[in-house]
Amino acid sequence: MALKTNPGNYFEDFETGAELVHAVPRTITEGDCALYIGLTGDRYPLHCSAEYARSLGYQRETVNDLLVFHVVFGKTVNDVSLNAVANLGYAGLRFLAPVYPGDTLRSVSTVLGKKENASGENGVVWVRSTGTNQRGETVLSYNRWVMVNKRDPKTPTGAADKPEMPALVKPEELCVPASLKLAGAEPWVSGGRAYFDDYVKGERIDHVDGMTIEEAEHAIATRLYQNTAKVHFDGFGAKRTRFGKRLMYGGHVISIARSLSFNGLENVLGILAFNAGAHASPTFAGDTIYAFTEVLDKAELPGCPGAGALRLRMVGVKNVDMQAEPVTLKVEKDGKQVYHPAVVLDLDYWALIPKRG
Amino acid sequence: MALKTNPGNYFEDFETGAELVHAVPRTITEGDCALYIGLTGDRYPLHCSAEYARSLGYQRETVNDLLVFHVVFGKTVNDVSLNAVANLGYAGLRFLAPVYPGDTLRSVSTVLGKKENASGENGVVWVRSTGTNQRGETVLSYNRWVMVNKRDPKTPTGAADKPEMPALVKPEELCVPASLKLAGAEPWVSGGRAYFDDYVKGERIDHVDGMTIEEAEHAIATRLYQNTAKVHFDGFGAKRTRFGKRLMYGGHVISIARSLSFNGLENVLGILAFNAGAHASPTFAGDTIYAFTEVLDKAELPGCPGAGALRLRMVGVKNVDMQAEPVTLKVEKDGKQVYHPAVVLDLDYWALIPKRG
Amino acid sequence: MALKTNPGNYFEDFETGAELVHAVPRTITEGDCALYIGLTGDRYPLHCSAEYARSLGYQRETVNDLLVFHVVFGKTVNDVSLNAVANLGYAGLRFLAPVYPGDTLRSVSTVLGKKENASGENGVVWVRSTGTNQRGETVLSYNRWVMVNKRDPKTPTGAADKPEMPALVKPEELCVPASLKLAGAEPWVSGGRAYFDDYVKGERIDHVDGMTIEEAEHAIATRLYQNTAKVHFDGFGAKRTRFGKRLMYGGHVISIARSLSFNGLENVLGILAFNAGAHASPTFAGDTIYAFTEVLDKAELPGCPGAGALRLRMVGVKNVDMQAEPVTLKVEKDGKQVYHPAVVLDLDYWALIPKRG
Repeated sequence: MALKTNPGNYFEDFETGAELVHAVPRTITEGDCALYIGLTGDRYPLHCSAEYARSLGYQRETVNDLLVFHVVFGKTVNDVSLNAVANLGYAGLRFLAPVYPGDTLRSVSTVLGKKENASGENGVVWVRSTGTNQRGETVLSYNRWVMVNKRDPKTPTGAADKPEMPALVKPEELCVPASLKLAGAEPWVSGGRAYFDDYVKGERIDHVDGMTIEEAEHAIATRLYQNTAKVHFDGFGAKRTRFGKRLMYGGHVISIARSLSFNGLENVLGILAFNAGAHASPTFAGDTIYAFTEVLDKAELPGCPGAGALRLRMVGVKNVDMQAEPVTLKVEKDGKQVYHPAVVLDLDYWALIPKRG
Repeated sequence: MALKTNPGNYFEDFETGAELVHAVPRTITEGDCALYIGLTGDRYPLHCSAEYARSLGYQRETVNDLLVFHVVFGKTVNDVSLNAVANLGYAGLRFLAPVYPGDTLRSVSTVLGKKENASGENGVVWVRSTGTNQRGETVLSYNRWVMVNKRDPKTPTGAADKPEMPALVKPEELCVPASLKLAGAEPWVSGGRAYFDDYVKGERIDHVDGMTIEEAEHAIATRLYQNTAKVHFDGFGAKRTRFGKRLMYGGHVISIARSLSFNGLENVLGILAFNAGAHASPTFAGDTIYAFTEVLDKAELPGCPGAGALRLRMVGVKNVDMQAEPVTLKVEKDGKQVYHPAVVLDLDYWALIPKRG
Repeated sequence: MALKTNPGNYFEDFETGAELVHAVPRTITEGDCALYIGLTGDRYPLHCSAEYARSLGYQRETVNDLLVFHVVFGKTVNDVSLNAVANLGYAGLRFLAPVYPGDTLRSVSTVLGKKENASGENGVVWVRSTGTNQRGETVLSYNRWVMVNKRDPKTPTGAADKPEMPALVKPEELCVPASLKLAGAEPWVSGGRAYFDDYVKGERIDHVDGMTIEEAEHAIATRLYQNTAKVHFDGFGAKRTRFGKRLMYGGHVISIARSLSFNGLENVLGILAFNAGAHASPTFAGDTIYAFTEVLDKAELPGCPGAGALRLRMVGVKNVDMQAEPVTLKVEKDGKQVYHPAVVLDLDYWALIPKRG
């Protein structure tokens, strides 16, 4: 009898250039969107109000871009990272089309390259994953690299074709929905007072609020995203791991930090791209997440004179009173710049935001 | 650089007569309604069955009136009570039109008056808040008063224009949907045996069931309502408060008590008005809520001969075995009538209920 | 004043042949389906993708059959098992028609028989419950028996009309949707490699993954199912019970085990019938559920040449490392075959699965 369950791919199983078609397409519904609000506290009005979305040229309220990301990402786990040791990074992620409740998403990944580690125990695999809707339109695409265990640590594979990753999505590569009409936006809707014009390169915004996450919350979220990584769900098995408990899905921390960052970025209409992202430390149930944002850059958007792009660094920290104890992204340790121990997330992204009317 | 985040209004910022337009309109969906059932155990059939709702003249199942209240209320927090010390009370709340999945709600508040407290530290602000749908119809309106911190405790403001609050919504002010058809109601649907005729002034109904609320549950609910009060979410910060832990949103306790009260009030079609409401004690995760109802009064409804209004006092209590230890609303303490220590909620409201056919 | 609350039926109240019409019909929405995915991790694609469901001849994504079961079952609790001591078993359960978001379900039960126990304290009641949709079509029907307390333990009732329960639903009684078109199924959608042809009688599949369930999760699920059994919700009252804590609804354990069993049964399209089911041990918050499946039998489906039925025994176990400590369904104890102490669920069911194309 052949094995019926999925053992996941090991380092040896990945072939550069191969296409992995991921299982279980998913129709995103109003139910997913409501639950996402309940789990993250999202208040960006484009996802909350059908009328507001229509006033901006959208068909109706859109699915939060991070919910789109989690659903597309979740499908890749079974084929890409079931035997992963670590999620190492993201690059060149772009959101390419709005997703509406009722749309069905599927994911496909292409193996970009792989490189065995010196230990012989594992190696790094680079993939490019794309999410498409039921009309075949690409809504999201990104590069990701993970460290994956080898099936056989004793036999070297010689794999050494590390691909080049883009350091930055260039402003001219950012994709603004063609139908976007900024004239219709009423300022009371977001409650925010600041627009593209008001943000200053180098500025830091402390987002004030904090959010404590319980086991039930991250587990419901991660099941909603249909991410099957065992470390988030199996509390009994987790007792035998080095942490002794379940890990929170790092993507959910991005969602929490982004919802917190509404307070100070209310007029942001959406994420256009991730330039780079890192999960600096693991998070666990009971942790309280806070966030601050650094304005890294500002850019004009070709063909979209009414709005601009802010390059933002969203930093998630945990279990620290930032009023009493200021937190910076990095600190010096043994002569090296390392993440501040409270930092859990470092995400460099481009945000779409209108200019003052 | 101007402050990007919202510091909230302090006592000095409120101006009698001013209008506060609250941010983030919200389209209520089937997803919100399902999650509300999952979080509260609501079983009132008007919110559960499209067929039943249509048999009564509604377009489809309606959004639970308390979910409408929480969403409308949630929007006001950022402008009214971010710097509040205490929520002191509600009065003159009326539900004015049914809300359906797909409707978009927004909130506006008018400052009715303000009165500085003798301490000089804070003062009381009275507001009238209204929730409207996407057609501009008012679905809910209510008075609320909160104690708000002063920005500058040392400088007296002299504010002393306390408005008059209605003690009671009069039966002739209650608003029954014009389309209500009672002839279509089939008695098996609710499972209840008692109608308007059967309730007796002075009667008390013990609702039998109890509901324990965990951190994840009240936090998901309060995020769903998009209520941004920090005390419900920031568990790390809460360690530095006098309670040492997060507070549950008092409105969610109203929802729990109301769902529990279905057992004994099955034929109630909805809440018409709150006369007065008080949160007698705070509730925390792990508390188990029970409820009893006192029938305060009964009234005919002008233009609605098939139904009447019950004036009910819904009392929420916690962590007590009411069979072993009878609980009354008030007890004597030092010669004064005070709330029984187990009481957490005291809500005086008008309910719509059909007469025996 | 007559009692307003529902005391539930006692053993004496059940009359063989009587029909119990259960309260609160329920329109299942996209919101319920999304929350079900969030609570259970369901990934069977028929419930996840509208496009995939249509490619198989369905109108759109279907409501998970177990969610249908829980909603139909939940309604019966108030009339059948509010005073139950134990849920003893299920038999002859058949799913008879697909349920779609937007359908409204109601439940009716018929008392099949009752038998007083020798102790005189209680007795067993057998009912047949059916769930119907808004067009009056039966979607589900099943037999269930429960041990119910007597109101008056001192007065014998003489009830002794125990009905015959079917040991097995015969393959020719299984109901496959007439509209099912198997030609349209694309294999990448489920990700599964095994079809009807590949499963072998006697085979055992270990489903690898584990799922820890918290209080908030089972309570939200059980409220979503509108199951009103006190033991799941009242944590304060539960301290006075023999377990000292809340019990998880056994049906939710079925859902968790079924979602876990997707890993190895990906091409199963749905449950056709339960032959028999038993909750071998109670489950509590914090327990981690694992599952394995034994292939008991295989059968052709009359009129459906493209698919067959697998008779499967789904076994749920808890808090055990099955890699380190192999678990069998039964073990010998004092010369008798009893459930392995880690087993919580033993469900014998028929599953619909396509043949290799």
